Amino acid sequence: MPHTLEPLTPAYTGYALDRVRESAPLVQCLTNSVVTNFTANVLLALGAAPAMVDIPEEAGAFAPVASGVLVNLGTPHAEQRTAMVEAAEAAGASGTPWVLDPVAVGALPVRTALARRLLALRPAVVRGNASEILALAGDGAGGRGVDAAHGVEAAAGAADVLARATGGVVAVSGPVDLVTDGTRRVRVTGGDALLTRVTGGGCALGAVLAAFAAVDGDRLATTTAGVAAYNAAAERAAAHAAGPGGFAVAFLDALAALTPGELAARKDLS
Amino acid sequence: MPHTLEPLTPAYTGYALDRVRESAPLVQCLTNSVVTNFTANVLLALGAAPAMVDIPEEAGAFAPVASGVLVNLGTPHAEQRTAMVEAAEAAGASGTPWVLDPVAVGALPVRTALARRLLALRPAVVRGNASEILALAGDGAGGRGVDAAHGVEAAAGAADVLARATGGVVAVSGPVDLVTDGTRRVRVTGGDALLTRVTGGGCALGAVLAAFAAVDGDRLATTTAGVAAYNAAAERAAAHAAGPGGFAVAFLDALAALTPGELAARKDLS
Amino acid sequence: MPHTLEPLTPAYTGYALDRVRESAPLVQCLTNSVVTNFTANVLLALGAAPAMVDIPEEAGAFAPVASGVLVNLGTPHAEQRTAMVEAAEAAGASGTPWVLDPVAVGALPVRTALARRLLALRPAVVRGNASEILALAGDGAGGRGVDAAHGVEAAAGAADVLARATGGVVAVSGPVDLVTDGTRRVRVTGGDALLTRVTGGGCALGAVLAAFAAVDGDRLATTTAGVAAYNAAAERAAAHAAGPGGFAVAFLDALAALTPGELAARKDLS
Repeated sequence: MPHTLEPLTPAYTGYALDRVRESAPLVQCLTNSVVTNFTANVLLALGAAPAMVDIPEEAGAFAPVASGVLVNLGTPHAEQRTAMVEAAEAAGASGTPWVLDPVAVGALPVRTALARRLLALRPAVVRGNASEILALAGDGAGGRGVDAAHGVEAAAGAADVLARATGGVVAVSGPVDLVTDGTRRVRVTGGDALLTRVTGGGCALGAVLAAFAAVDGDRLATTTAGVAAYNAAAERAAAHAAGPGGFAVAFLDALAALTPGELAARKDLS
Repeated sequence: MPHTLEPLTPAYTGYALDRVRESAPLVQCLTNSVVTNFTANVLLALGAAPAMVDIPEEAGAFAPVASGVLVNLGTPHAEQRTAMVEAAEAAGASGTPWVLDPVAVGALPVRTALARRLLALRPAVVRGNASEILALAGDGAGGRGVDAAHGVEAAAGAADVLARATGGVVAVSGPVDLVTDGTRRVRVTGGDALLTRVTGGGCALGAVLAAFAAVDGDRLATTTAGVAAYNAAAERAAAHAAGPGGFAVAFLDALAALTPGELAARKDLS
Repeated sequence: MPHTLEPLTPAYTGYALDRVRESAPLVQCLTNSVVTNFTANVLLALGAAPAMVDIPEEAGAFAPVASGVLVNLGTPHAEQRTAMVEAAEAAGASGTPWVLDPVAVGALPVRTALARRLLALRPAVVRGNASEILALAGDGAGGRGVDAAHGVEAAAGAADVLARATGGVVAVSGPVDLVTDGTRRVRVTGGDALLTRVTGGGCALGAVLAAFAAVDGDRLATTTAGVAAYNAAAERAAAHAAGPGGFAVAFLDALAALTPGELAARKDLS
């Protein structure tokens, strides 16, 4: 990272996108059956390389080779649960940053137990909506599945607690996103409500954060950059979309077309 | 439901769509791996909330909380089969309406046995093509996988038999759809052949019917309304599509843009 | 096949597409969770009929009924591995041609062992990128997941060896594709780099080759025709696409719109 570049600035966001494009990080995804396709396409559009390696024996073997790993609990069948623990342990042992997306945690028993076990393995980034972050921190009972019943700011304290517990960063998704390392909080605007009308809008962000986690530098800054890039592409896509179907297509095109210069000129961070 | 509103009319169809939009029913889907993404996006475009909770221990815990449940037998691996029975039993016990989509039943042994077991749990709605309905009623050997070898009207008697056996409603998909409660039969036009050129065209309808099953009122009327809304969106999408790729995108946009007033002005029911 | 038609010519490619459209081959797919939807939509757009039958007991029962079978190792969980061997054995015993797509073989232990076992069952077609073909032939250590680290021509010798070992045909995907039966090599141009920016670009080709394998005639010619048809649709789609999202949509439309006459007029084979 250039010494003259301040983290947590639009200029850094542009720099981080440039680094992702240059390095094409290999992102291993253990994710839910609903969003695998969209997630892989989001990573490809961004300029990263997806690898959906999610079976036991392979998941742990691959994590040390990956640039980043995503563990998303959306549809955690038994074989995938084993692979998730294996991947998180191997990522931790080898220094590969990994992202935990605790989908619908709190409301459902199997994934809630798994999320607690994974949390103890110290993910570099936790990404969820407010209800999920509250539930994971032990402050809430979870939403009704994938919906967020709580606002982002209501989860800010829980996000701080989680970040300090893992030593990592927590990103709370909502109309205005919040990213915290337990000490510093950053808000990220941009984005569009159409992201909530397409399945995987949040899940694919988890994969993008795994790609940005592979960029050298302050983890709070790389995570914030990932959120900002994602939101900028969503905003751009929404400007031309007739509805959620067209938006999903335009979002992939916008991610591919997004330039570091465009990001550096935005004012989404506060 | 307003007392002045006749069921099985375009006016009721418009009313039912309005109710779906107002209540945003939470639809739990246990569905096949090919169509999970499209199904979730169809529900989101419609204004419902998808929740793909399909693993044992969670499926049964979630069904009482859901507004409706879809059980689709497209790719029924062992863990999902257990979850499907669990969800159907919990839905039945708690009064959550659930939809059975017996994909390719008759032609394939594992799902055929499972379909019979699920049928005994009395789904509120069964949705299938003519070959599937004939096979499920014991009158046919099934089609060649997901294709319908038989016409809709050839399955009308079998649909009546099934509806009387379950005490629910049966919807047979085809160029003109048929919905029956074993006594009354309704035909629904609209739709477009492009729905058969996109995978999940029928499967996602099953999820839509689970969303409409959450609307208060005559189950034959709510199911008919769901079919009519789906067909209207398909017809609208096909008018602008260059092919099956563009159609799938336009269909999601059309579902999101469809208004109760537009539905109430159509003449698709007979 | 008309006696006057030379295989390995554009005229034959057009004829083979016409045969696929006429016969609507039923293609059984045992494929990875990332690309099931796109693969089914590609087959439907082409004019074939997809059937994703991939569980034990059903996979082997269905293969003799299918026109062609695809076995793709992208996310080979335990139940699917059993079904894959079952399907390959049943296809072999009944004369149904089947395609092996050894995704990321070499780099990952479980699928590598499975690929060797499947290879011994003599697939009619093996499709992969250069790194996968080299690894399968024992000449390389595999790429980094789904990426090809090697060029197509570097894998030509390995492809010949594999083709002679199986008695079938091997297709190596890249900027210029190579198809060989161990004696004769054909190169196919066309296509577009955007195919590598959409997940499943290669995987869906495997399904298309299973559809073309159902056409009577020289297997080298039918496989070459499938690659040529796929590339022609990709080239046509790329001409109008703003990015990878729009490309995937346009590709399905282009496959559906592609005519035998258009293919017969191209000059992609050498």
